[in-house]
Amino acid sequence: MNITIIGAGNGGLAFGATLIKQGMSVNLFDKFPTILVPIIENNNSVTLDQDGRKETLQFSSVTDNLEEAIRASKYIFVVTPAFAHKEIAAELAKCIKKDQVIILNPGRTGGALAVKKILEEKGKSGVVVAETETLLYACRKTNATDVCIYGVKDKVGVASLPANAINKIINDLSIYFPSLFPYPNVLFTSLNNIGAIFHPTPFLLNIGKIESKESFKYYHEGISPFIASFLEKLDEERLSIAKIFGVQLPAAKEWVEKSYGLTGNSLYDAIQSNLNYKDIFAPLDINSRYVLEDIPMSLVPLAELARVGSIETPYMNTIIDLASALYKRDFRKEGRSLEEMGLVESIESIQRLANNHFSII
Amino acid sequence: MNITIIGAGNGGLAFGATLIKQGMSVNLFDKFPTILVPIIENNNSVTLDQDGRKETLQFSSVTDNLEEAIRASKYIFVVTPAFAHKEIAAELAKCIKKDQVIILNPGRTGGALAVKKILEEKGKSGVVVAETETLLYACRKTNATDVCIYGVKDKVGVASLPANAINKIINDLSIYFPSLFPYPNVLFTSLNNIGAIFHPTPFLLNIGKIESKESFKYYHEGISPFIASFLEKLDEERLSIAKIFGVQLPAAKEWVEKSYGLTGNSLYDAIQSNLNYKDIFAPLDINSRYVLEDIPMSLVPLAELARVGSIETPYMNTIIDLASALYKRDFRKEGRSLEEMGLVESIESIQRLANNHFSII
Repeated sequence: MNITIIGAGNGGLAFGATLIKQGMSVNLFDKFPTILVPIIENNNSVTLDQDGRKETLQFSSVTDNLEEAIRASKYIFVVTPAFAHKEIAAELAKCIKKDQVIILNPGRTGGALAVKKILEEKGKSGVVVAETETLLYACRKTNATDVCIYGVKDKVGVASLPANAINKIINDLSIYFPSLFPYPNVLFTSLNNIGAIFHPTPFLLNIGKIESKESFKYYHEGISPFIASFLEKLDEERLSIAKIFGVQLPAAKEWVEKSYGLTGNSLYDAIQSNLNYKDIFAPLDINSRYVLEDIPMSLVPLAELARVGSIETPYMNTIIDLASALYKRDFRKEGRSLEEMGLVESIESIQRLANNHFSII
Repeated sequence: MNITIIGAGNGGLAFGATLIKQGMSVNLFDKFPTILVPIIENNNSVTLDQDGRKETLQFSSVTDNLEEAIRASKYIFVVTPAFAHKEIAAELAKCIKKDQVIILNPGRTGGALAVKKILEEKGKSGVVVAETETLLYACRKTNATDVCIYGVKDKVGVASLPANAINKIINDLSIYFPSLFPYPNVLFTSLNNIGAIFHPTPFLLNIGKIESKESFKYYHEGISPFIASFLEKLDEERLSIAKIFGVQLPAAKEWVEKSYGLTGNSLYDAIQSNLNYKDIFAPLDINSRYVLEDIPMSLVPLAELARVGSIETPYMNTIIDLASALYKRDFRKEGRSLEEMGLVESIESIQRLANNHFSII
């Protein structure tokens, strides 16, 4: 089975290397030739550093030609910031065939819906579009042809449009990615977007420090009790939205506790007790995905979904407004609207769409 | 001439000591006996540390009885956080006489208007209420009976209700406070509230650091280029409001440059070049006046005034919303509304009120 990876960043190389290692034929695409040239000059190969072992692994092809890159592949893994999904969907629509499957890693909120809508508008309604709830890997490119995987998440939910295509996807992929498990529909993956809670707010409320390039531990030093308390409110809004769509999800606090079986009185305590966060440092560039991706592709579509159920989201709104004001961009306009996700203002119609979306695989 | 100081904090002791030193009879009031006891036990005296000299100065009386404190005074200096003005006005209304003059140091935005309204409602419409645009002193209590004045501002505007009472006030007080100069009306003092620009925003955008008790230079380290650029937008909103009321004021950038005759390309450059800011450190308590006073008593009334002229204030609104969300308080409701300032939604009527307010001294 051939697989194509779209995006030669941290996550793209981690996915690619993991698949090659397991004997798959993997094609790597990126729209920026400069990111590909070092890999091509390195004999189409990258070095994977994981569990203290290094291994050099060769892609079948490395190209900035999308049509070539996907031609022979059953699965197309999109591993890019979510703000690139729209453009990628439009390009894929020109060359994708109906038996091919797109998987967004991750979709953030509404990724699969937005991509599916573009494909349908371009006459490619047969294509299955899936999304994960979070990136499978904690990983980092250490240079242009080296990727280090620090950790692999135990469980990562994935859902598809149409919803019932997910079992076939899990059947095909769980041998390579045993952490993947199926969700009933994309409302689960889109609403269990924990980055929406943890990424933009602590970033913005430490922006003086970040812009001064002061290194600090993002979770353990950046999330003060006051900020953690704000995040709990933000998370309550997310859970209220999930509830109106009949989606039961763990709170951010439970999510943090899960890893170590910890319990705490507050999200602050839970974060402080979680040693997984010990060595995660803050991004040192104000143009971080924590804002540029997670505001328009996470908080904006969450606030849009809230609107459908007349749920008030003052905490989400404040962070969206703050980011828009600081970055002098209209993130609401740039972000995923109900319309871009192909949704109308009706809870039932959204649930129906998520559960039955059109065709069956 | 007798003078009463209301508020035995940093500013109150600085004003009191300065007046006593110049031969005035000064009565000190505070509603908290615990703050007064050490002064009473110290023979009603405080030690002023200024220009490298220390001097012990004795108040005529030190009391938590307001009626006693103001009985013999022509001028009543209110030197408290602006959120206390309402309560003080209500208490003063019970005992003040119509030939007494209240001066708020400073009024923040709408202080004189709000105090005047309460006095009128309680039948004390003859009382003159004035406000300064900023606190005259850079000062700090070093302990319960010691105050250090680091600097005295060169020029501090003051205005009154009624507007034409200001000349008499300046005549009476400029001998003691040569920095005071008269403004045409309280719209000038209220709109030239530079703390509204410099206090809450950098504080909130460094709150992770502040809550971690990390010491940092508030202006030189806390106001990053990104934050400074936000402040310029916030300041443009303030100047737009001033403009609709026919009030010409310097921009925050000019205000910062003024002190040293500096010029810079941006507010960030101006702040970095201003050595006055070199040693000003951030408050290390999240319950700081930079938020608790400057949101409800500066940004909220500024946004209220903007509403009268249909001026959009997205930057002010964002900071008010952010503070309300973080502190879990409804600062819009707590803050100075048009109604509390005795204003109606009409530019002309507000200008008329500010210029002619009722009686003439």
